[in-house]
Amino acid sequence: MEKIKFGMIGGGFGAFIGDAHRRASRICNDYQLVGGAFDVDFDKGKEFGASEGIAPNRCYATIDDLIAGELALPENDRMEAVSIVTPNYLHFPIAKKLILNGFHVICEKPMTMTVEEAEELEMLVGKHDITFGLTHTYTGYPMVRQMKELIKDGVLGNIQRIDVQYYQGWINSVIHGRENRITGIWRLDPAHSGVSSCMGDIGVHGFNLLEYTTGLEVKTVLSDLNNVNESVEMDLDGTVLLRFNENIRGVIRSSQVAAGEENNLRIAVYGSEASLKWEQENPNYLYLISDTEPTKIYKPAHPYNGELAESSHVMPAGHPEGLYEAFGNIYKGIAKAIRKETYNSAEFPTEHDGVRGMKFVHRVVQSNKENNTWVDL
Amino acid sequence: MEKIKFGMIGGGFGAFIGDAHRRASRICNDYQLVGGAFDVDFDKGKEFGASEGIAPNRCYATIDDLIAGELALPENDRMEAVSIVTPNYLHFPIAKKLILNGFHVICEKPMTMTVEEAEELEMLVGKHDITFGLTHTYTGYPMVRQMKELIKDGVLGNIQRIDVQYYQGWINSVIHGRENRITGIWRLDPAHSGVSSCMGDIGVHGFNLLEYTTGLEVKTVLSDLNNVNESVEMDLDGTVLLRFNENIRGVIRSSQVAAGEENNLRIAVYGSEASLKWEQENPNYLYLISDTEPTKIYKPAHPYNGELAESSHVMPAGHPEGLYEAFGNIYKGIAKAIRKETYNSAEFPTEHDGVRGMKFVHRVVQSNKENNTWVDL
Amino acid sequence: MEKIKFGMIGGGFGAFIGDAHRRASRICNDYQLVGGAFDVDFDKGKEFGASEGIAPNRCYATIDDLIAGELALPENDRMEAVSIVTPNYLHFPIAKKLILNGFHVICEKPMTMTVEEAEELEMLVGKHDITFGLTHTYTGYPMVRQMKELIKDGVLGNIQRIDVQYYQGWINSVIHGRENRITGIWRLDPAHSGVSSCMGDIGVHGFNLLEYTTGLEVKTVLSDLNNVNESVEMDLDGTVLLRFNENIRGVIRSSQVAAGEENNLRIAVYGSEASLKWEQENPNYLYLISDTEPTKIYKPAHPYNGELAESSHVMPAGHPEGLYEAFGNIYKGIAKAIRKETYNSAEFPTEHDGVRGMKFVHRVVQSNKENNTWVDL
Amino acid sequence: MEKIKFGMIGGGFGAFIGDAHRRASRICNDYQLVGGAFDVDFDKGKEFGASEGIAPNRCYATIDDLIAGELALPENDRMEAVSIVTPNYLHFPIAKKLILNGFHVICEKPMTMTVEEAEELEMLVGKHDITFGLTHTYTGYPMVRQMKELIKDGVLGNIQRIDVQYYQGWINSVIHGRENRITGIWRLDPAHSGVSSCMGDIGVHGFNLLEYTTGLEVKTVLSDLNNVNESVEMDLDGTVLLRFNENIRGVIRSSQVAAGEENNLRIAVYGSEASLKWEQENPNYLYLISDTEPTKIYKPAHPYNGELAESSHVMPAGHPEGLYEAFGNIYKGIAKAIRKETYNSAEFPTEHDGVRGMKFVHRVVQSNKENNTWVDL
Repeated sequence: MEKIKFGMIGGGFGAFIGDAHRRASRICNDYQLVGGAFDVDFDKGKEFGASEGIAPNRCYATIDDLIAGELALPENDRMEAVSIVTPNYLHFPIAKKLILNGFHVICEKPMTMTVEEAEELEMLVGKHDITFGLTHTYTGYPMVRQMKELIKDGVLGNIQRIDVQYYQGWINSVIHGRENRITGIWRLDPAHSGVSSCMGDIGVHGFNLLEYTTGLEVKTVLSDLNNVNESVEMDLDGTVLLRFNENIRGVIRSSQVAAGEENNLRIAVYGSEASLKWEQENPNYLYLISDTEPTKIYKPAHPYNGELAESSHVMPAGHPEGLYEAFGNIYKGIAKAIRKETYNSAEFPTEHDGVRGMKFVHRVVQSNKENNTWVDL
Repeated sequence: MEKIKFGMIGGGFGAFIGDAHRRASRICNDYQLVGGAFDVDFDKGKEFGASEGIAPNRCYATIDDLIAGELALPENDRMEAVSIVTPNYLHFPIAKKLILNGFHVICEKPMTMTVEEAEELEMLVGKHDITFGLTHTYTGYPMVRQMKELIKDGVLGNIQRIDVQYYQGWINSVIHGRENRITGIWRLDPAHSGVSSCMGDIGVHGFNLLEYTTGLEVKTVLSDLNNVNESVEMDLDGTVLLRFNENIRGVIRSSQVAAGEENNLRIAVYGSEASLKWEQENPNYLYLISDTEPTKIYKPAHPYNGELAESSHVMPAGHPEGLYEAFGNIYKGIAKAIRKETYNSAEFPTEHDGVRGMKFVHRVVQSNKENNTWVDL
Repeated sequence: MEKIKFGMIGGGFGAFIGDAHRRASRICNDYQLVGGAFDVDFDKGKEFGASEGIAPNRCYATIDDLIAGELALPENDRMEAVSIVTPNYLHFPIAKKLILNGFHVICEKPMTMTVEEAEELEMLVGKHDITFGLTHTYTGYPMVRQMKELIKDGVLGNIQRIDVQYYQGWINSVIHGRENRITGIWRLDPAHSGVSSCMGDIGVHGFNLLEYTTGLEVKTVLSDLNNVNESVEMDLDGTVLLRFNENIRGVIRSSQVAAGEENNLRIAVYGSEASLKWEQENPNYLYLISDTEPTKIYKPAHPYNGELAESSHVMPAGHPEGLYEAFGNIYKGIAKAIRKETYNSAEFPTEHDGVRGMKFVHRVVQSNKENNTWVDL
Repeated sequence: MEKIKFGMIGGGFGAFIGDAHRRASRICNDYQLVGGAFDVDFDKGKEFGASEGIAPNRCYATIDDLIAGELALPENDRMEAVSIVTPNYLHFPIAKKLILNGFHVICEKPMTMTVEEAEELEMLVGKHDITFGLTHTYTGYPMVRQMKELIKDGVLGNIQRIDVQYYQGWINSVIHGRENRITGIWRLDPAHSGVSSCMGDIGVHGFNLLEYTTGLEVKTVLSDLNNVNESVEMDLDGTVLLRFNENIRGVIRSSQVAAGEENNLRIAVYGSEASLKWEQENPNYLYLISDTEPTKIYKPAHPYNGELAESSHVMPAGHPEGLYEAFGNIYKGIAKAIRKETYNSAEFPTEHDGVRGMKFVHRVVQSNKENNTWVDL
């Protein structure tokens, strides 16, 4: 199938999330990066484009240049979709221009700075024949999708309680002067990041996960937020009580200063008949617990899963999806050797490992044949 | 940096391991697939090549055609490396031809059918200026590499015992008539697969992992293999006792009929001072245990790891590498919508999720400002 | 050392918590049960006393009889302490009488029905030379005590967030008509149980654990409770936001209708330097996490623990405390055989197991001596 | 029910295993310790007896004195059973005398020093109307018993492979001079301990667990043992290959020098239909895995368990059995306060904790009633 041509706003050298978007596009294998405005510094942006093999004429200085340049191309060559991976305050104006000019949009979260902006984008998408995707990445996990399916199938009975957690610790290091991450700069500045740090950056992932898996809509919230350090203007930590239409209680707990936590996002949905629990740091395990049956653990790559979960998974059972990155590391090591950058036998198995392996297999078979005696390798 | 042009022998439609190689090449982003002989059925091979966007003239019928065709191209356009993802018995003849013609080789394991073939390849690689990589994938995991580094640093003292396990259950289903996997056909046929099934296919991964992480060489083996079912000619299960130069004892336990096991590869290396344990199904956790200190868990993406481990990891702490596949699933869902195949809001978050998220963040901040009162969403 | 003579109010046939108190007293081996008023039905109480080997004259009908009877005995024979294991509403009047008459009191929680009653008891204890113990059992775990010590030693820096959870599911079964536990009767009746079910019965354990481990005092609370089912007068589920003197945020989440949860009590204390996490269902693991070091797991029976933790533990490392119950089961099986009730070789290993074991050991040594050959058992 | 009067040979001051036997007897509540020969040093033995409240005339110097003394007592007062907790070489002569004189015997493992001795005891037990119990403690765990029942019920289909592990690290410390445990002295001396250290002391537990849970009998063994350190006469580490009547393969791996391991006993039984896995360090979890169904976790205290498992458990679901020891610690703290040894509020919750708890519960209910507002504690 022909690949979808796409571009990127932001995401140049050193940008973690732009890199993540490009990797995602390569893993699913449906996209080809053909251009972008990768950096506010145009020279750096061009340099980055070159490093990715982008044609110089499709490295643009601004979103306006990009739109003009692409629209000038024959439709068949033109960028169809654009990923927005800039700081938060630029999401809205860029997305708006893209939608109005007929580009599909893949936007980092949070979607915008204000509710009104978000609603305007939603209205505009409704008027234009384009697809708008927001990268709440966690809903891409196979077992999150299985959770959604089990709940839709009524396995839990009536939902009674929902408990969501997203704990990180990294800003803790920043505010206590142990670290000075570049990414910390705009994230703690309301003008660039929005009205909230902890809830805006990660709490909202929990919220999205909750509405995604349960199909329920939160109606009312009561929150208690904490900026922890006087010098910080935004919340770094907080708890939100939730009410739904029905008599269901929920809570989202979130923190960026929970020292030692990495990306501890987890959700538990408790029903009258059974409950489901999932956690991001061990994403291949979905737990179904009940008062009457042994706990069941769902894992990817089994026929007992629903279609949505199984179509989201390509590995055989027991191989965590991260195996592909391990595999990629092997390919990387070989690439470094081919390019004569470094030849490091710790970075990929070589012909010598092959000889060792063949000896192992053959000697083992020989020992077994010879009545289980010792055979030298 | 310019990508390495590579080709592939085997790996057409329905081939799991060929797909894995291509994904690995895209994840590390150092390769471009430019051609191949993807299928013994040339028509199918051409069709597959087209689906991957390969130029028709670089879809070859045989390895000989591929070598001839590529050598006829200007050096700058030519394939530099070739991945061999055929059944085992073809690894040797294909690899030999490629080496003799100056191509870098990326070869699936086991390297060959016999020890002699493997030694011949090793000798040939030594004579030609090429890189030979064997895809013992598991050594690409960051925490396996950290394990290697910690052992090299002497953290364990003198190694006293090594215990390796690789348990799968899938052939169990095949031999008891519950399933008839295509892949089972050549794997259980010695003419195509080699002298051993269980040890040749997975036991050898354990062996490689052991030699990789410890830097030790196995000297002698004593094995007890089991074909379980009379109709099967090869071992499906077995235990191998190991001796090393020093007074170290080791054991490799492996099975393809351990019902319910998925890819339960694990290694424990016990030293006089401390020990290390790792398991493939939860690859981000490396356990250092000792008689005198609290157990330590090493995880990727921390400065306390060595350089080899850290350079093998691109995600922030707490994001299992599989996050990229989750991310890829989101991109895939968007691609399906862009292509108007399906529009499924369960497959990617849309603008509506964006509006919901913005409401959540703003209402939460409002509730906090208004002395922790309820605010409608 | 001479044992402390103690009595019991409540705890007759079928009473789970009375049995737990008696087991606790036997495990620590400092007590001897000498009498009690075991049941509101005096006949049943006497029968129960007999079954425990209690002298008939020390089986009393009421707390008043018990006090009068014991005070009439020589001081050396007299009950020194009394355990109160009645429904909640009787704790206060019984405890008060015992204190006023100079008995030490071991009281189930909650201490009383009202704050005023609790304060009155506290005042009375202050005036009398007696010990009052309240059985918040979870603070007896070695790793909870180690947690307290590590926090006192300042390992966490400044505490920033405290997150406590106590989830059970059992009342869920009761309110949805799947079960009709006897113990449910008085627990859901405010007149016998008090002002709260979920918070009063289990939330308060979380609260106690929090104040115990951190040494902090909660200053203010904001709660959202849920009775789930209209027919229930009391809360069965709820979330409580906590404020402390300092700028610390905390939350207690608790439920008795979290289907499938057993006794999932857990606590996480997050500090500026590091954090500690513990969970009751796996009580031998205490996790110290930080942004800069590998996670550390503290376990009982190691010199790295503090004195309070180590003095609370009697097993060698790696034996969960439950080993004693396993051991007790073996003794129980032997007792049934001795008494000729049943002789069940599944309930204890016999002389035949001994012969098998000796053969195993000797044949294994023989095989090793004979150059690793097979030896029949 | 009347308690069984029992005595003890060995188990005086500082003896870990004697203490474990006494605790087991108190937990199951079927025994009363009435006498013993607690120490080879008679004075110390008498002192120990006094500390346990044993009448002086029932503290004996030798097994012969004990037998004579007890037989001289009226049958109703007489010791019925005797626990043998001496070093291994004394098990046989003492057990033999006890059996010949009609006492029930509870014997530590290994049963004897030689196979012949064990068989002689088995023969003697057959001739006398007594019960002989051998304390392979691990078969007392509820989930081990559930495992036995599930296997007997045929849940696994035909067993194909059995994998048992018992790894400890403590002798590692001893042989590398980091520690000098008293218990190490006789354990590493063949004259007192027997023909094997690692296999005799712990490997045999794995063997017993295997035969207990599967109901199978090992027919032939092939072993590879390691004494690790030249100065040690006995095996400290080893692997044993197992053959059964049927075409089943098994392996027992065991070590006392696996640095950092505590009591890592685990068993996996693989069948044609499904498999079961259990590990001693987390004894409340029994895993049933299969190729077709989600993994099931069995836990104690649920009606889905069989009768043997459920009758071996007294706690409500989710309370690990170790809760009793936690409870015992609370009772111990209260005992120390009653005896005015120490008054340590870290060792038991006091009336002050009760007041705090009541405030918590009442203020929480108040906040909820007042529309979720803050209420001071």
